[in-house]
Amino acid sequence: MMKLYNFHASSTSYRTRIVLNLKGLSYEYVRVAINKGEHLLDAYGEINPMRGVPTLEIDGVRLYQSSAIIEYLEEVYPDPPLLPKDPAARARVRALAAIVGSDMHPVNNLRIRNFLRDTYKQDANSVGAWMQLWNKAGFDAIEAMLRADKNRRGFCYGASPTIADAYLVSQVFSAIRFKTDMSPYPEILAVAETCEALKPFADAHPSKQPDAAA
Amino acid sequence: MMKLYNFHASSTSYRTRIVLNLKGLSYEYVRVAINKGEHLLDAYGEINPMRGVPTLEIDGVRLYQSSAIIEYLEEVYPDPPLLPKDPAARARVRALAAIVGSDMHPVNNLRIRNFLRDTYKQDANSVGAWMQLWNKAGFDAIEAMLRADKNRRGFCYGASPTIADAYLVSQVFSAIRFKTDMSPYPEILAVAETCEALKPFADAHPSKQPDAAA
Repeated sequence: MMKLYNFHASSTSYRTRIVLNLKGLSYEYVRVAINKGEHLLDAYGEINPMRGVPTLEIDGVRLYQSSAIIEYLEEVYPDPPLLPKDPAARARVRALAAIVGSDMHPVNNLRIRNFLRDTYKQDANSVGAWMQLWNKAGFDAIEAMLRADKNRRGFCYGASPTIADAYLVSQVFSAIRFKTDMSPYPEILAVAETCEALKPFADAHPSKQPDAAA
Repeated sequence: MMKLYNFHASSTSYRTRIVLNLKGLSYEYVRVAINKGEHLLDAYGEINPMRGVPTLEIDGVRLYQSSAIIEYLEEVYPDPPLLPKDPAARARVRALAAIVGSDMHPVNNLRIRNFLRDTYKQDANSVGAWMQLWNKAGFDAIEAMLRADKNRRGFCYGASPTIADAYLVSQVFSAIRFKTDMSPYPEILAVAETCEALKPFADAHPSKQPDAAA
């Protein structure tokens, strides 16, 4: 069975769980307590050289980086497809995902928040303002792209979930957790609501994971 | 003809130019002077809602986010392939690319450097220390992955260029520009040297672009 090294509230973990669930794949949940720095220990460095979550282990082979893991799952388990067929449409879905995966999440993740607090001596309000600023830039772009696409039916693209929805739902969770004002983003909130009503998304939610109680 | 909206010294632009050149594709070079804030103007916002570079325009369709553009080019122009065939190998190449594309570049790019300088009042040395810290974390992981792969022949994976090389070469350029100590990374430097000797990489170099003199 696959093993997913991950943490309930990590949005890269969350998006990967959504994709695994959408593909109907079961996996062993291996908790990495990043809130306690477990990912920084040498033991985890042996598993994942970047010391990030998630890591997906399949038959002893370890896959790193949620974007690479998600593309792997799409290639090896093509049903149901989470990318459209047309190359330009695939690029659009991947661009929506990459706005989250490259422009939003990395600048707001745990190591950055800790650095702002510990080295730049920023208080919680200031760290919050940092996060909200980059979330706004990304959500502004995604909202505009969703608004411009008249062929959407509930999701980020088309009429069924794609990888973009997995990225967006996990980022909305994180943004709300860190008090980002979501009122300017009705299209994004509608997508999140549509997705969260589906079992593969609901089951992947941070609050439903075995390490959530801690 | 394709149009690439880009900037010579932008590493996301540079990696995309490398891939276009490796595929033997010609394109019109459209300069976006991000050093003068041209990407933030509404005129560019109409072209790219995230206001980032690069944008690739093909037959009037605009593609955003270098990672999505590069996957598009690989799908539509499969020769020469820049990803291996085996899914786990593809995931490894994509993970190497994603360490650069998600963990290194986004936290060190122009908007972040400007924010550290203008809002947190960090001087050039402090901004440099920030960049070097995240570069180190990423390069440490990539160096370990390259060292662990005994089947490599000169490149990040296998015996010919992959997308990982396009990401790595552009990040090494950026890291050296911002005075990152590269001495701990002999494997990475050897890959960069191998690649830079090839015309598709050399022609994509920031110093060779039409806007480089400015």
